[in-house]
Amino acid sequence: MGIIAGGGALPARLAAAAVMAGREVCIVKLDGYVDDPVLDQYPNVTARLGAAAKILDAMRKENCQDVVLAGKVARPSLSSIRPDWRAAKMLMKVGTKALGDDGLLRLVGKELEREGFRLLGAHEILGDLAVEEGVLGAVSPDEQAMSDARHGLSVARTLGQADVGQGCVVQQGLVLALEAIEGTDEMVRRSGSYRRDGIGGVLVKSAKPQQDKRLDLPAIGMKTIEEAHKAGLRGVALLAGGTMIIDRAAVIARADALGLFVVGLTLPDGDNVNGG
Amino acid sequence: MGIIAGGGALPARLAAAAVMAGREVCIVKLDGYVDDPVLDQYPNVTARLGAAAKILDAMRKENCQDVVLAGKVARPSLSSIRPDWRAAKMLMKVGTKALGDDGLLRLVGKELEREGFRLLGAHEILGDLAVEEGVLGAVSPDEQAMSDARHGLSVARTLGQADVGQGCVVQQGLVLALEAIEGTDEMVRRSGSYRRDGIGGVLVKSAKPQQDKRLDLPAIGMKTIEEAHKAGLRGVALLAGGTMIIDRAAVIARADALGLFVVGLTLPDGDNVNGG
Repeated sequence: MGIIAGGGALPARLAAAAVMAGREVCIVKLDGYVDDPVLDQYPNVTARLGAAAKILDAMRKENCQDVVLAGKVARPSLSSIRPDWRAAKMLMKVGTKALGDDGLLRLVGKELEREGFRLLGAHEILGDLAVEEGVLGAVSPDEQAMSDARHGLSVARTLGQADVGQGCVVQQGLVLALEAIEGTDEMVRRSGSYRRDGIGGVLVKSAKPQQDKRLDLPAIGMKTIEEAHKAGLRGVALLAGGTMIIDRAAVIARADALGLFVVGLTLPDGDNVNGG
Repeated sequence: MGIIAGGGALPARLAAAAVMAGREVCIVKLDGYVDDPVLDQYPNVTARLGAAAKILDAMRKENCQDVVLAGKVARPSLSSIRPDWRAAKMLMKVGTKALGDDGLLRLVGKELEREGFRLLGAHEILGDLAVEEGVLGAVSPDEQAMSDARHGLSVARTLGQADVGQGCVVQQGLVLALEAIEGTDEMVRRSGSYRRDGIGGVLVKSAKPQQDKRLDLPAIGMKTIEEAHKAGLRGVALLAGGTMIIDRAAVIARADALGLFVVGLTLPDGDNVNGG
């Protein structure tokens, strides 16, 4: 199994789970994104995001059949990608609008499939990642929190239509912050500065309507919970089936300890995770 | 003419223009929002945003026929409004979802009309405020800038559907920042931290599809231009007919001096400023 790895703890957790299941792994560390030294325990090569030929070659040489894309990749500019001939060919097909957030990931996924690899989602290997409907920890959201959560989900889905962010912070019906390229944790931190008096807000993470669930599902982790607590939020609402919690047991335990709720939401009727 | 005044330079400019045109003005300074001491030159009262009865009484006592809402009002939380009986009655009619950004302004506008006042837009008094299509200064945007501007306009309009922000910063097809409650200048400042290598980005301001043009049209001013320059942006794109430039001549001159373009954009066919 090949893992094309970006930042954060997810790639190493995937590698560990795959090895535990008796699979061999080969890791392509994306230069400038990977920050977890644990990955060096596994066979690995380092490649620039723009070095498509090198990435494909490495996968083939190691006889990978399945490939997972996992970890954070801050959206790059065209000049920072420095595409090789293979990547340039891919980019030319779609134009630079592919850079509009996860258009690029969809492109990479499609290209991997065209080359005969089977694309897997992280949630297919780590079953406990996926978020299901309902209260996930010991703390339950009250009516105001649920109202903020539902409003935030609708806002985040609208944002997703434009292929931009997937998250927002809502307090008493007010949208305090919207996520673009800065990432969830940074957006949560900022929302603390715009906090209103009274009952605290809710972090909402969704998936985009057009999101391929095998590619970079929105995820929260331990740091998200810590930032949410510091920003005065009362909890986190996640789209069920469309988001992941990395290190779930530990994250929920920490949220419980801090008095934050974690809840999985479904979309209202007429909308669904993969539909438009 | 009554002016219900928030922050920034717009209310005083309106008052000056109205007096110059031979009208009498009466100003209601919204407590905690007004920051321009020039307003004290005119007959004025101070009232909390939630003191609807006091605001309506002041308008009637001064025999106001026309009313303009002008200036920045950061969206308040329900607890900070501390509604009086009159405001509470208004709020009960629509529920707290009115707080979802400019729902509140629409509510106030509707209530003023019900009470017999004629609601005017700032652009009806200060004709030079409104943005028209085309290059407004000495600097012209190139193809990349226009492509970023058009992408940003589409993103900002999508945002507007959810009654949230009206602005974003786009660089090379990437959305660096989205505006929620923090205001345009603060969003522009932040975008500087997420700037990618290469050609700089564009600030885009739109109006919401459902925006009543008499209420709080999105506006930029001198500070916006200074922040855009500091954040490494190359220019500003504004929805023609749906945004305002406060102190227009000075703002354009400053943009020229800094080498920033200012351009008015129209929406693609099938969409329009007031339509859905």
